[in-house]
Amino acid sequence: MAKQKKAPRPKAVTPKGFRDYFGPEVTERAEMLSKIAAVYHAYGFDALESSALETLDALGKYLPDVDRPHAGVFAWEENDDGWVALRYDLTAPLARVYAQHRNDLPTPYRRYAMGPVWRNEKPGPGRYRQFYQCDADTVGAASVAADAEICAMLSDALETVGIPRGDYIVRVNNRKVLNGVLEAMGVTDEEQAADVLRTIDKFDKVGEDGVRELLGKGRLDASGAYIDGVGLTPEQSEPVIAFLTSKGATNEETLSNLTTAIGESLIGAEGVAELQEIAALLAAQGYGLDRIVIDPSVVRGLGYYTGPVFEAELTFEILDDKGRTRQFGSVAGGGRYDDLVKRFTGQAVPATGVSIGVDRLLAALREKGRIENHARGPVVVTVMDRDRMADYQAMVGELRGAGIRAEVYLGNPKNFGNQLKYADKRQSPVAVIEGGDEKAKGVVQIKDLILGAKIAENATHEEWKERPSQFEVSRDQLVAKVQEILDGQVG
Amino acid sequence: MAKQKKAPRPKAVTPKGFRDYFGPEVTERAEMLSKIAAVYHAYGFDALESSALETLDALGKYLPDVDRPHAGVFAWEENDDGWVALRYDLTAPLARVYAQHRNDLPTPYRRYAMGPVWRNEKPGPGRYRQFYQCDADTVGAASVAADAEICAMLSDALETVGIPRGDYIVRVNNRKVLNGVLEAMGVTDEEQAADVLRTIDKFDKVGEDGVRELLGKGRLDASGAYIDGVGLTPEQSEPVIAFLTSKGATNEETLSNLTTAIGESLIGAEGVAELQEIAALLAAQGYGLDRIVIDPSVVRGLGYYTGPVFEAELTFEILDDKGRTRQFGSVAGGGRYDDLVKRFTGQAVPATGVSIGVDRLLAALREKGRIENHARGPVVVTVMDRDRMADYQAMVGELRGAGIRAEVYLGNPKNFGNQLKYADKRQSPVAVIEGGDEKAKGVVQIKDLILGAKIAENATHEEWKERPSQFEVSRDQLVAKVQEILDGQVG
Repeated sequence: MAKQKKAPRPKAVTPKGFRDYFGPEVTERAEMLSKIAAVYHAYGFDALESSALETLDALGKYLPDVDRPHAGVFAWEENDDGWVALRYDLTAPLARVYAQHRNDLPTPYRRYAMGPVWRNEKPGPGRYRQFYQCDADTVGAASVAADAEICAMLSDALETVGIPRGDYIVRVNNRKVLNGVLEAMGVTDEEQAADVLRTIDKFDKVGEDGVRELLGKGRLDASGAYIDGVGLTPEQSEPVIAFLTSKGATNEETLSNLTTAIGESLIGAEGVAELQEIAALLAAQGYGLDRIVIDPSVVRGLGYYTGPVFEAELTFEILDDKGRTRQFGSVAGGGRYDDLVKRFTGQAVPATGVSIGVDRLLAALREKGRIENHARGPVVVTVMDRDRMADYQAMVGELRGAGIRAEVYLGNPKNFGNQLKYADKRQSPVAVIEGGDEKAKGVVQIKDLILGAKIAENATHEEWKERPSQFEVSRDQLVAKVQEILDGQVG
Repeated sequence: MAKQKKAPRPKAVTPKGFRDYFGPEVTERAEMLSKIAAVYHAYGFDALESSALETLDALGKYLPDVDRPHAGVFAWEENDDGWVALRYDLTAPLARVYAQHRNDLPTPYRRYAMGPVWRNEKPGPGRYRQFYQCDADTVGAASVAADAEICAMLSDALETVGIPRGDYIVRVNNRKVLNGVLEAMGVTDEEQAADVLRTIDKFDKVGEDGVRELLGKGRLDASGAYIDGVGLTPEQSEPVIAFLTSKGATNEETLSNLTTAIGESLIGAEGVAELQEIAALLAAQGYGLDRIVIDPSVVRGLGYYTGPVFEAELTFEILDDKGRTRQFGSVAGGGRYDDLVKRFTGQAVPATGVSIGVDRLLAALREKGRIENHARGPVVVTVMDRDRMADYQAMVGELRGAGIRAEVYLGNPKNFGNQLKYADKRQSPVAVIEGGDEKAKGVVQIKDLILGAKIAENATHEEWKERPSQFEVSRDQLVAKVQEILDGQVG
């Protein structure tokens, strides 16, 4: 009989587009989210955690085609539920939750949610199929006071996590103003309106003249290709150009420019009035132009939202991949969307909210050195004599009692070099050594590993002698000396 | 032409066996996990967050049958990865992570992980298909000092989250001792050994005599059904009975009893020596029998683990569904399992760890009143005059500045009763009212909603007059008065 073939060993890999997060990557994100949550909580927002799975039906948008659902989500068929899918954002679950629990929830319902979402999209550098979102939304409040509140809260949240005032700006625009502008332009055809929206989406890249060309006859782009224009007359294009460039030195000036841009449009006037109310509310609360500003050049999201639109941008400069300086850019966006639960209940419910790009904000904080150093490893107590494990455990117990992260080396202690290599890999700040001689003398050796590494890198032999990185102290001075070294390393 | 049929509205429901978590349910769990993480961190454990998805191949255990994978996991086929699945615990991903990154990770690798896992099992009352786990494991440490450390850390974690000493006990057993007992019994057949294991698993329920019967000829159970026995002689059964009942007044006594139970078995002697070393290490660190104890009656997990096994039990009494008092029971368990990464690398790597039952521990803390009251809602500033929204926003700004959670009512303010109903639903402690009259007089009305509700429930009219629950204070006393009321409510 043939010997049964052994199953091949499985590959130790994540599915494509997924990754693992280690140590500080996890704790730094958790700390940032916890600070944001505290701000949201102070504003009266309640936490909500919905499950990772939703019925595909409830998620909407993406519906199963034939055998497989539309790409974009991870979806599969379950016997008792039909098609289910992993949530692709935190807004679709909010719609389902609000529709399901609306009789038990307060109205307005302010909620925040933080957690992973999943996208079945082509992964790329820095683009993963699982990533965190952090949202706050107010459901059931028609008043733009809710929008103003979201903007103020966003500003507070950014400062709380460590973005200094002056290094960010929250810009506010309004889709209704754009609708007014379209009316003023005489654009009534939906398709043409969509063309205009697509065009102003390029405002960031092509600027005022580019938009003018694209709204008119067309434009030769940088690569030499000719892009067909929307075909408006120069006169027709004027209101949208006026809209995009209406930002003045003050909100009043901006609003006055907008009033010109919208002409006689009623919906436009409503939009301008909303922006005016938001500006007034924020000014009354002391949020000046250095924090939140009316800025009609914000075009991202105008196609999706139905009223006020906001975006938080970090204004400090960083070097991009090619070494050029550029602004850090957007870290959060949101706005008003009034059809949140309509597909479930048939009833329009007003809602407004914001989503913070967790990974981008975290990257910005790292860039600015605003993250507490979580990378520092524990103090490592080495094992010189494996029969005296209890002695070493007592040391880490004392250190932890003083609030110092500490551990005993638990690998095979035979090779002492391995223990120090381990401490290096752990990014340990300090190693503690107590061999038989030390035990007999009632002392311990304490190595400052950070200083040791610095000296090994840079110092001359003279300096090395002058600045010892290893100290012998009496056993009862262990905690005090370790604390002293740790304090010195931070300073 | 027939009118196009509208798609039916989707149902606003979670998939079966899933649920949403609101407000305090989310924040109380997060706070508990954050306290546990701090303990793990102090012990030198590093955070790890792996993705929710794994290849089914890497998860192992559950492999696809024909079209559909084995029940138990949520699994589906992706074009570029083959079968993928949601993780069903945090140990299988650890095995994959360690195998994948072992050259970059320190050895030993201490890691903790907290997060949801998914089980495709029949849901029931209190049993959901998504739930949290909270694990700590040490990979690559063969020494039982690693097991002792896990036990000590578990004890610290329980006390840190709020389980007082005396209300819990960590019990330690060892699979090797049981193996020794099986040798002493002359049970060498694997199937018979499995039968013995299955039998002692029932020790909790059927007691010493029951186990005796089940190991021998069989037993008539409570329902009148006859359960076949394993068929051992009474003499053969003695060692396992001795093992299960070996717990003495001290660890020394227990270990001495175990030494008798294992007879001449070498593996048994190794197991006893391990327990002895664990007991000695813990005693040296001051963990007395009131916290961690050698207890061979702990049988849960003996079938799965390969060395020391631990379980944390809460010893205080609660009332069960039928009103009977019973001990709260187990909230955490773990042990040593030495084949963690072998299926990936072919190499045996020792590992030991613990998993805390997050929901059970949280339920215990609620039972003991050890959870900070997260249910208290925000102070609600009502809107009497919608044109003075800025005034109301200024109030919540001041309150938040003093660390008080506060919000302006953002629904339609026309019906004041609705605003107070809203405050009730929000479990607001205090409502603030400033109508035109108050504004003119420079005062605000402050309602103590908790006291108000109490008075409405219990008080006579006299008491009601003596203990007003509404106060008029000058506008500049707003924050101070609200603070005073909040302090009084806590006391």
